[in-house]
Amino acid sequence: MKKVGIVMGSDSDMPVAEKAIERLKGFGIPYEVHIYSAHRTPEQAKAFAEGAERAGFGTIIALAGKAAHLAGALAANTTLPVIGVPVKSSTLDGLDALLSTVQMPGGIPVATVAIDGAANAAILAAQIIATGDGELAAAIREDRAKAAAEVLKKDAALNI
Amino acid sequence: MKKVGIVMGSDSDMPVAEKAIERLKGFGIPYEVHIYSAHRTPEQAKAFAEGAERAGFGTIIALAGKAAHLAGALAANTTLPVIGVPVKSSTLDGLDALLSTVQMPGGIPVATVAIDGAANAAILAAQIIATGDGELAAAIREDRAKAAAEVLKKDAALNI
Amino acid sequence: MKKVGIVMGSDSDMPVAEKAIERLKGFGIPYEVHIYSAHRTPEQAKAFAEGAERAGFGTIIALAGKAAHLAGALAANTTLPVIGVPVKSSTLDGLDALLSTVQMPGGIPVATVAIDGAANAAILAAQIIATGDGELAAAIREDRAKAAAEVLKKDAALNI
Amino acid sequence: MKKVGIVMGSDSDMPVAEKAIERLKGFGIPYEVHIYSAHRTPEQAKAFAEGAERAGFGTIIALAGKAAHLAGALAANTTLPVIGVPVKSSTLDGLDALLSTVQMPGGIPVATVAIDGAANAAILAAQIIATGDGELAAAIREDRAKAAAEVLKKDAALNI
Amino acid sequence: MKKVGIVMGSDSDMPVAEKAIERLKGFGIPYEVHIYSAHRTPEQAKAFAEGAERAGFGTIIALAGKAAHLAGALAANTTLPVIGVPVKSSTLDGLDALLSTVQMPGGIPVATVAIDGAANAAILAAQIIATGDGELAAAIREDRAKAAAEVLKKDAALNI
Amino acid sequence: MKKVGIVMGSDSDMPVAEKAIERLKGFGIPYEVHIYSAHRTPEQAKAFAEGAERAGFGTIIALAGKAAHLAGALAANTTLPVIGVPVKSSTLDGLDALLSTVQMPGGIPVATVAIDGAANAAILAAQIIATGDGELAAAIREDRAKAAAEVLKKDAALNI
Amino acid sequence: MKKVGIVMGSDSDMPVAEKAIERLKGFGIPYEVHIYSAHRTPEQAKAFAEGAERAGFGTIIALAGKAAHLAGALAANTTLPVIGVPVKSSTLDGLDALLSTVQMPGGIPVATVAIDGAANAAILAAQIIATGDGELAAAIREDRAKAAAEVLKKDAALNI
Amino acid sequence: MKKVGIVMGSDSDMPVAEKAIERLKGFGIPYEVHIYSAHRTPEQAKAFAEGAERAGFGTIIALAGKAAHLAGALAANTTLPVIGVPVKSSTLDGLDALLSTVQMPGGIPVATVAIDGAANAAILAAQIIATGDGELAAAIREDRAKAAAEVLKKDAALNI
Repeated sequence: MKKVGIVMGSDSDMPVAEKAIERLKGFGIPYEVHIYSAHRTPEQAKAFAEGAERAGFGTIIALAGKAAHLAGALAANTTLPVIGVPVKSSTLDGLDALLSTVQMPGGIPVATVAIDGAANAAILAAQIIATGDGELAAAIREDRAKAAAEVLKKDAALNI
Repeated sequence: MKKVGIVMGSDSDMPVAEKAIERLKGFGIPYEVHIYSAHRTPEQAKAFAEGAERAGFGTIIALAGKAAHLAGALAANTTLPVIGVPVKSSTLDGLDALLSTVQMPGGIPVATVAIDGAANAAILAAQIIATGDGELAAAIREDRAKAAAEVLKKDAALNI
Repeated sequence: MKKVGIVMGSDSDMPVAEKAIERLKGFGIPYEVHIYSAHRTPEQAKAFAEGAERAGFGTIIALAGKAAHLAGALAANTTLPVIGVPVKSSTLDGLDALLSTVQMPGGIPVATVAIDGAANAAILAAQIIATGDGELAAAIREDRAKAAAEVLKKDAALNI
Repeated sequence: MKKVGIVMGSDSDMPVAEKAIERLKGFGIPYEVHIYSAHRTPEQAKAFAEGAERAGFGTIIALAGKAAHLAGALAANTTLPVIGVPVKSSTLDGLDALLSTVQMPGGIPVATVAIDGAANAAILAAQIIATGDGELAAAIREDRAKAAAEVLKKDAALNI
Repeated sequence: MKKVGIVMGSDSDMPVAEKAIERLKGFGIPYEVHIYSAHRTPEQAKAFAEGAERAGFGTIIALAGKAAHLAGALAANTTLPVIGVPVKSSTLDGLDALLSTVQMPGGIPVATVAIDGAANAAILAAQIIATGDGELAAAIREDRAKAAAEVLKKDAALNI
Repeated sequence: MKKVGIVMGSDSDMPVAEKAIERLKGFGIPYEVHIYSAHRTPEQAKAFAEGAERAGFGTIIALAGKAAHLAGALAANTTLPVIGVPVKSSTLDGLDALLSTVQMPGGIPVATVAIDGAANAAILAAQIIATGDGELAAAIREDRAKAAAEVLKKDAALNI
Repeated sequence: MKKVGIVMGSDSDMPVAEKAIERLKGFGIPYEVHIYSAHRTPEQAKAFAEGAERAGFGTIIALAGKAAHLAGALAANTTLPVIGVPVKSSTLDGLDALLSTVQMPGGIPVATVAIDGAANAAILAAQIIATGDGELAAAIREDRAKAAAEVLKKDAALNI
Repeated sequence: MKKVGIVMGSDSDMPVAEKAIERLKGFGIPYEVHIYSAHRTPEQAKAFAEGAERAGFGTIIALAGKAAHLAGALAANTTLPVIGVPVKSSTLDGLDALLSTVQMPGGIPVATVAIDGAANAAILAAQIIATGDGELAAAIREDRAKAAAEVLKKDAALNI
């Protein structure tokens, strides 16, 4: 199965990244975690993106806050789909990271999820990898069925 | 090759959708275009999403404005990756559509691109389909090389 | 008397929902509380809305956060007035939920109240049911008179 | 059948109000149109709201722009449900009117619809009046069915 | 000397109002404090504004949060200058109160100060009353000189 | 009667300033118009503010766009009440000017009106000057009565 | 004298860039104009920044719209001060470009000016180069004196 | 070596200013810290800016919150580059300070950094001074190399 790359701009993003890791583990998808900054270590970020396809990655999840350029910087150096997670920081409630991630100019898209939405990023990564993997697709469906059952159980508990 | 579904919430979204169609044609990716509203025709939207994988779609692009629920409504009914294009309408400059599309709650992600970013949505769709298709991946790389060459040609023209 | 349905997208919305429940109890209006997610349990949300009128509901209050589609998803499946309560979550201070709830496209309105405004949602529900119920209308007027008296009592206390 | 009151803060709001009038006419619901400003003619606005129930109104639609107090000012003087339509003016794209209308403090709700959403306000008014009127409820359902059919006809036209 | 009226929409605004009271006391300006809600006690709010000039008030400070209509509702019923203080509440960081207070439509201005800026509202009230009162004007100048001296003392302490 | 100073940051603000001039003329209030920039001619702006009281001004209206410092810069150099009119420019719809004008730090208030609200600024100036001038107060009341009559005439015309 | 580099992300930014060019010409500062995209031609953007100091540049002005990463991408590859000009595009009024340019994470600053503020970017570039160049500093002072004189001439013309 | 001036509008900005001081100390750049308010001590702010170049300053860092005029007020009185740090205060999350600092009108630029971005302001100051100082430029490069090494060390630690 193809791997998912998780790249964060700073180790302070780790608590958000862990929500993605947990979901990938749940799906049994192999992953690799890195800390590369689009601004402080641009070379390494670029090198990772350029080599990602050959290294067996199917998609990359990028997490960054503030003027969050990381997802775009990775996307500019690979044709793998790059998923961007805007991370909320101490000001502006994540709006800066959201707009910096999603409003990509023509030619280089970033598949953006909600602010701090790392769990959903992992699910999206799983969905992308599952396009060619019926077993994984079934696992995602099962996961959804469980989530639905949990909602309905809580609903039932309300009305006893 | 897997098809791309393009679903818009209203025929007024067609000018935006056409930018996606043009790019998919350029890549030679088969596509199908539909008008289904999450609110006025929820049944048909749901039916399309539920049947999409079996019908040979690899991903779905959803375009909608205002309280843009379409991408989320489709995503809730398929495990295919759903790409959301927030469409700018007469008020709030597209911010309502952006937040309604990208801020999905846990469990059901939408891969959101820029406001009115239908061309990028098509490129992202191509990147998703290309994960299992080396020829398409090469075409995307070539397309990028052309875009880069065009930028550099314009740059050169400035400095003669 | 017609019942009020209270539907929340997640059990984490319960503290907000309780403000609605308290007011409905105060008015003696029968109600039913459910947890249905527009995205994780779309079928049940739809079924509830479709059957609501026959089941004796006069209006539905829907509470949801982030890309809050629940009120719209219910409204699309019933002609009962649906009242939307945008719920504040961890980012963007409720603006995402507000715009996702209120900016409904043409054809399917949602009667939106303030962010976390569940108490007002219950009063609005009471006002809707009271259109055909003079006794309930009198109770609402009495409730308002009490609130006014309380304000004036506090005012008087300031100026002794 | 109960009447719908349409009150606008200024005659410049008439083009928006007309979208509500057209829908009410379509449903055969009697209505009355007024221009009363919360600030320039507070007495008349108050008098209208106080007498509305006795005068046979079932609900009131209030349209206003900028610091839009009209809906709240009417709601403070009647227990009829008041529907607020925030009107976009020359600055801030309607955000000021939206927040001034929807963010009502505890005790006095306003059922807010989208910026410039007068057509939806009329549909919501119809839904409120229809709670006690099966024929009108049927007319709303029929109206929705027509809107859905129109969407599907446009969809079909795309794929011939 | 003319009095300053301080009116707040709810007793929860008292901590903010106290900053105005402290400054008025400092200037020796007589004042009166009231709790009147634009929506829950519209009659009393109106009556206060209508009688304010005759009762010896020179200006009114109005404090309110959320869809803050209080300042405008008072201003509509007096030709005294009304100063509006938008109060921050639990959502939207005071932006709703700011826009509801400052964006008044033509004819009825509100002199708006910063969110939670009650101290400045009191200074502005003093400045308005001081237009016809040289002694008060001198007191304001002295107050400013003290504030400047305090800044410069802190500056000097940095550079010893 | 005391004069009103109208100061704008740039001659491009003249169309907005003219709405203030027209209202002051209507009230028969003497005024003086100046172009002084807080940044390009800080000396002259300061000199005008410092001398304004002695020169017979009762209040100053300041109009500026973008990072609108003019009102604050004048207010820092006079104890006369300074009224700020945020002017909409080519980006951000006037929000930058509004926040730069209204969010004044402690000690130096600016009486802020709506974006482009120069007419209301003039009415507020009239209200401030009228605190010591019964005839002007009567003129303001008459002006309001006319505005109210006009609204009611338009209302009556609707319902013939 | 050191040169100023002007880099824009797309040739559509040229009308904004020309305002910078005009000012640099006025100061007699040598400059070079380039079109390099942070995403479409990341290599060339990087190469330009890396070589800029050796090539005799004293500062770089970067213009870009939407998720404007260009200024940050250049700044990551040079220790020359980089000035960022956020360019307004078809949605969000330039707010996306502003936040993407100014909210840089720790370590790599961008000297950001107003949205579309290319003329000011050129003046800032001149001020940076003038730190070691008394003649240029004098030219900037003269330029300011002219601008002030122009303001005062317009002011004088108002009051003849 | 030229000095850096650090001016803050209030001593409450000291915790933010200290991040700039720490970085300047790290670079061995001489600095001077002052508290001058654009509104409470406009004379001293102006005097400092006017004399800064002669006193050996190469650039000035200005920190202020809310309607942050300080950077602009200093910039209007010197041709040295002025760096603005918008400081987050109790409301609006720093957006008011950001817009008041960055949206400067034509003629007087402020080099704005991120909200609370004082460390980056110091680095930018160092970069400006380093234009004529090869040793300092080398120190900045070394500092960046250290930051990059730290990122890579953290990355390596993840993957042992």
